[in-house]
Amino acid sequence: MNSFGNRFRLTSFGESHGAAVGGIIDGMEPGIAIDLDAVQRELDRRRPGQSAVTTARNEKDRVEVLSGMFEGKTTGTPIGFIVRNADQHSNDYDNLRDVFRPSHADYTYMAKYGIRDHRGGGRSSARETISRVVAGAFARQALALRGITVTAYASQIGNIVLDTPYQDLDLSLVESNVVRCPDLATAERMIELVKQVKADGDTIGGVVTCVVQGVPAGIGDPVFDKLHARLASAMMSINAAKGFEYGMGFAGAARRGTEVIDIWSTAADHIKALSNYSGGIQGGISNGEDIYMRVAFKPVATLLRDVQTVDIHGNPAVVRAKGRHDPCVIPRAVPIVEAMAAMTIYDAYLLT
Amino acid sequence: MNSFGNRFRLTSFGESHGAAVGGIIDGMEPGIAIDLDAVQRELDRRRPGQSAVTTARNEKDRVEVLSGMFEGKTTGTPIGFIVRNADQHSNDYDNLRDVFRPSHADYTYMAKYGIRDHRGGGRSSARETISRVVAGAFARQALALRGITVTAYASQIGNIVLDTPYQDLDLSLVESNVVRCPDLATAERMIELVKQVKADGDTIGGVVTCVVQGVPAGIGDPVFDKLHARLASAMMSINAAKGFEYGMGFAGAARRGTEVIDIWSTAADHIKALSNYSGGIQGGISNGEDIYMRVAFKPVATLLRDVQTVDIHGNPAVVRAKGRHDPCVIPRAVPIVEAMAAMTIYDAYLLT
Amino acid sequence: MNSFGNRFRLTSFGESHGAAVGGIIDGMEPGIAIDLDAVQRELDRRRPGQSAVTTARNEKDRVEVLSGMFEGKTTGTPIGFIVRNADQHSNDYDNLRDVFRPSHADYTYMAKYGIRDHRGGGRSSARETISRVVAGAFARQALALRGITVTAYASQIGNIVLDTPYQDLDLSLVESNVVRCPDLATAERMIELVKQVKADGDTIGGVVTCVVQGVPAGIGDPVFDKLHARLASAMMSINAAKGFEYGMGFAGAARRGTEVIDIWSTAADHIKALSNYSGGIQGGISNGEDIYMRVAFKPVATLLRDVQTVDIHGNPAVVRAKGRHDPCVIPRAVPIVEAMAAMTIYDAYLLT
Amino acid sequence: MNSFGNRFRLTSFGESHGAAVGGIIDGMEPGIAIDLDAVQRELDRRRPGQSAVTTARNEKDRVEVLSGMFEGKTTGTPIGFIVRNADQHSNDYDNLRDVFRPSHADYTYMAKYGIRDHRGGGRSSARETISRVVAGAFARQALALRGITVTAYASQIGNIVLDTPYQDLDLSLVESNVVRCPDLATAERMIELVKQVKADGDTIGGVVTCVVQGVPAGIGDPVFDKLHARLASAMMSINAAKGFEYGMGFAGAARRGTEVIDIWSTAADHIKALSNYSGGIQGGISNGEDIYMRVAFKPVATLLRDVQTVDIHGNPAVVRAKGRHDPCVIPRAVPIVEAMAAMTIYDAYLLT
Repeated sequence: MNSFGNRFRLTSFGESHGAAVGGIIDGMEPGIAIDLDAVQRELDRRRPGQSAVTTARNEKDRVEVLSGMFEGKTTGTPIGFIVRNADQHSNDYDNLRDVFRPSHADYTYMAKYGIRDHRGGGRSSARETISRVVAGAFARQALALRGITVTAYASQIGNIVLDTPYQDLDLSLVESNVVRCPDLATAERMIELVKQVKADGDTIGGVVTCVVQGVPAGIGDPVFDKLHARLASAMMSINAAKGFEYGMGFAGAARRGTEVIDIWSTAADHIKALSNYSGGIQGGISNGEDIYMRVAFKPVATLLRDVQTVDIHGNPAVVRAKGRHDPCVIPRAVPIVEAMAAMTIYDAYLLT
Repeated sequence: MNSFGNRFRLTSFGESHGAAVGGIIDGMEPGIAIDLDAVQRELDRRRPGQSAVTTARNEKDRVEVLSGMFEGKTTGTPIGFIVRNADQHSNDYDNLRDVFRPSHADYTYMAKYGIRDHRGGGRSSARETISRVVAGAFARQALALRGITVTAYASQIGNIVLDTPYQDLDLSLVESNVVRCPDLATAERMIELVKQVKADGDTIGGVVTCVVQGVPAGIGDPVFDKLHARLASAMMSINAAKGFEYGMGFAGAARRGTEVIDIWSTAADHIKALSNYSGGIQGGISNGEDIYMRVAFKPVATLLRDVQTVDIHGNPAVVRAKGRHDPCVIPRAVPIVEAMAAMTIYDAYLLT
Repeated sequence: MNSFGNRFRLTSFGESHGAAVGGIIDGMEPGIAIDLDAVQRELDRRRPGQSAVTTARNEKDRVEVLSGMFEGKTTGTPIGFIVRNADQHSNDYDNLRDVFRPSHADYTYMAKYGIRDHRGGGRSSARETISRVVAGAFARQALALRGITVTAYASQIGNIVLDTPYQDLDLSLVESNVVRCPDLATAERMIELVKQVKADGDTIGGVVTCVVQGVPAGIGDPVFDKLHARLASAMMSINAAKGFEYGMGFAGAARRGTEVIDIWSTAADHIKALSNYSGGIQGGISNGEDIYMRVAFKPVATLLRDVQTVDIHGNPAVVRAKGRHDPCVIPRAVPIVEAMAAMTIYDAYLLT
Repeated sequence: MNSFGNRFRLTSFGESHGAAVGGIIDGMEPGIAIDLDAVQRELDRRRPGQSAVTTARNEKDRVEVLSGMFEGKTTGTPIGFIVRNADQHSNDYDNLRDVFRPSHADYTYMAKYGIRDHRGGGRSSARETISRVVAGAFARQALALRGITVTAYASQIGNIVLDTPYQDLDLSLVESNVVRCPDLATAERMIELVKQVKADGDTIGGVVTCVVQGVPAGIGDPVFDKLHARLASAMMSINAAKGFEYGMGFAGAARRGTEVIDIWSTAADHIKALSNYSGGIQGGISNGEDIYMRVAFKPVATLLRDVQTVDIHGNPAVVRAKGRHDPCVIPRAVPIVEAMAAMTIYDAYLLT
């Protein structure tokens, strides 16, 4: 099904080459003043074609909110919204009518639905994330009222890795460069790499780090719906995500318990941990510390060069280069990761 | 809530030191012959105290199935089952009555529920996984009828890493040693490490690799409920899990698209990929290849030595060593990872 | 939440006086050819202002389908649709800004949401049913492919009761008159009554009977989700519904078992019941006979005369007559009852 | 599936002739002191064989709570419970092995599951309601802390109808007689009727009225999950229920709006309706008045005489009288209706 969340729930619709994409946000609290310009700005952040390192497709995505607000505030009723697909290019895709692109969802969709909608990948298109970003923007504004913030950034592109802990970075610099890396020297190297990859007609993967600050203790569930299990599901539902870790993550596999337990102390007047290897969640429930996580993305499979494949009859075929996709998904993934984190945390908050 | 899955759903109950743990399996297909001895054997695999590298607690866990079967077959009605907690040791825990153990769920439970059930961690106890293993055993038997198998093994303990691809291992050797590593030389080194860790009164993390074979193409969902998003959630819901990756995983972040796309060919009479960087899932839906994944576990926080902490009043306190927990969670995590994979795949199968 | 159904699920949005109403249909099977004109015709059937017995509001409701279809067929992806609110009249409602209308949801909404959206009742408006009718029309077309039909009609308006069994009526006559009663003599009397009620500035209640034919045996669930429990919930979710019964219904309370058991026989080559007091459902699961039910509606509370009430401060106030609402909800309820029945049966069908 | 509710959720298991019935209560608030004797008393109320008008089966149903409580209070974790089936009589049912009993679920279960579990009807057995009564008893205790009470009684058995409004009855008398009718003269007549029906080897239907008092305004949902839609679904999920109405119910179909609107006034210092035709719910949300409803039950189909039927091969067969079922379901339905009302209201309360 096409719904995400429990108490705060996004249901989305829309293919890349239909009339519109959109969704319904259900469960938003009533009486919250929403800055719709800020929602639009989030949407602008996920748009391709923003810079030299991204592609030339100039999508004019304007969100139209159709319900659920009155005099600038939410009413508690569902928020319907749409974003028209201004420029549908569907004949661009006619050469894909009978072709299975490699490492795309063409073949698996055909296996599941018995139907071939060749126009840009149907629901597996990147345009599906528009609804996530809109709903995430609503969730962020509700969280902000509680002092909860969500910030993501590029921490790896290809073999360029930013391993400075997030606490030592100036996260206000994330938007200062096109790859969304808060360390400017690393950002420069990432930009160089992406340009080279683009020149090669290739694509490149990377990692997005996300930090959620201000979550009070007691949010989440102890067994199957552990807060980090929900976050994992949310992040892995983003196209091209291949891995998720939080707190000490995979690095913890090599460690001893004495190295990584978070000793409690009583700083000032409340109980606080001296370290945060746990990543802000213990037994599936937030403990009041920062929640931080990393999401790995593979290089997207739509290459900027011709690729050999087969068609639906099993005959050899070629996917022609189109030169319209981003060489690196990471900069656009940053606002999507933030949106998924915001929705997950707000949903868990409302469930508590 | 304490339910897992949609069409195949486990709802579980039970604390480590109550009368019993158990659950209800809902959605099992009717007419499936179940080998209850095989269910019990799975349960035996997760038991602590099986060897020198694990601890001495000798839990006698016998599963009793109370409903949903008739003349050896499932009837389609819910399967209730219980496992009595033979030996409740609750006074062992009296010294924990007012203490928050570090890196445990004690503090977060108190924050969420406003109550302190100090007896072994309540639902965060490892005994909660008994229900998972029982339900997973039912799912595995249903999957086996379709030729779908699930196999997990220890691929890392501490800094001992088995990086041979699973295709080059003899997976029938997993149960041949106490750490559940199919490479016997590596297993020896892992066993030595665990013994040393135990001698040090410490604990150690690791990684479990899991392979699901025989899944037909077309299983899963394309957007929020991608098959790998469900697997991620399932695995991250296991105690001490800190990371999840499938297919090329985090390694894919450093790769170029040309290196890792899975080119389609037409081997024999059906469409098949020449490689499997995708990990058997594309666009959230299975493509007929093996599904493989890795789950990282931190070292458990219950140490075999005294640890400084605070009590619920914020005063300094000590958690005394008890010497009853495993120094390494990985061997016991293997059957639990298998159970979660089996339930997830069977649920997705029934949803399709 | 604003979703209905499980495998076939409508999520809806929209207030009477916002920009649009609409919804997302999730779970529609792929590959089904949809007659969009037929969908529009269903929508036209629920429109007010169709005749002398209904009111003059001439809503021009055009459904726009935004996704989920390709070359005239469903694709299995979610179907987004909107219906613009052409004429929003919101200043008509300014006199209601601070007033609680009697027997409306004004007071209870305020109690729940802490907000007063006085524009026509928010989500409790009759326009909310537009989404139900659109989704129901899709479900009906999917059911029709299996030979399953849904027909409803007015069987009571005020004290005019049509007690002929549905089997003895010509259901093709339902649309032949403005009250949607297939017995023409009774229809005449109902029309006279509604005209009189309208002349009196009053409103009147009634009953809609609904028959579902062609459902195969085996659809539904045995315990909490009995097929008739789902139908009851579906029908009672329609505005102004006050009662539901199926099969022998309330009349069965006065009967003896020997009078009303449905004896099995073997007509021709299959097992068939000699009677259908059960109403086509036994133990929550369809038995292959007709499913029939009745839904009672109260007279709507928006009168065509001034009514005394209180405002939000507890002071006396008056709700002024507007003369725009139907005096009788029954004719418009007929297509809505059909839509709810179609969605419920199709959902249960897909779940099986 | 075998779950009921959202935030407060019962999942149940168990056939009449397996080892046990039971369930898991999920979502119970932590810290609530539970009187387990009161839970057992509710269970005793639903037991057959309590009097001359009921049958001789003397089930010894003892509830055993296995988890979720600590020192007499709920902990917020799931409450597992079982009730052993002391006396399984399964060979009583051998004569039913291949027979479809009329107006039972035998045929529909076979159609759905493809399996014939002839032992007393599987999940359609009345013993399935044991879990409902246990979970309802927990919900009632939680509601009682908020001053919310649930009371049901027999208001009709066969043609003996108690039409006194509930406000004019002394509801403390419900348990004073075996038919659970608070009007003693009517109770006498009901008892006479049931004795006669039993002597005739027949069964008889009836109606249960239920009143929920003390629900604050603002509980429920406005669209698909209207509070009365949930109540309808809950009640119709009880075996043998054929109809549901609340407030003015079916009688409202014959009324004019001017007769039945609930005018607001400002008694003392709060807003209050002068009448309660609405039945305590407006627009799906409670308004602070009493919620009252009626549930119709058919006569049960298990007769006390031989009945003609067919077997699974379509051949004529006979269901032999067993003389063990109640001639009238109403007295036992009273605590079940209360349990379903309590669970529904408590769930809606927690959702708000």
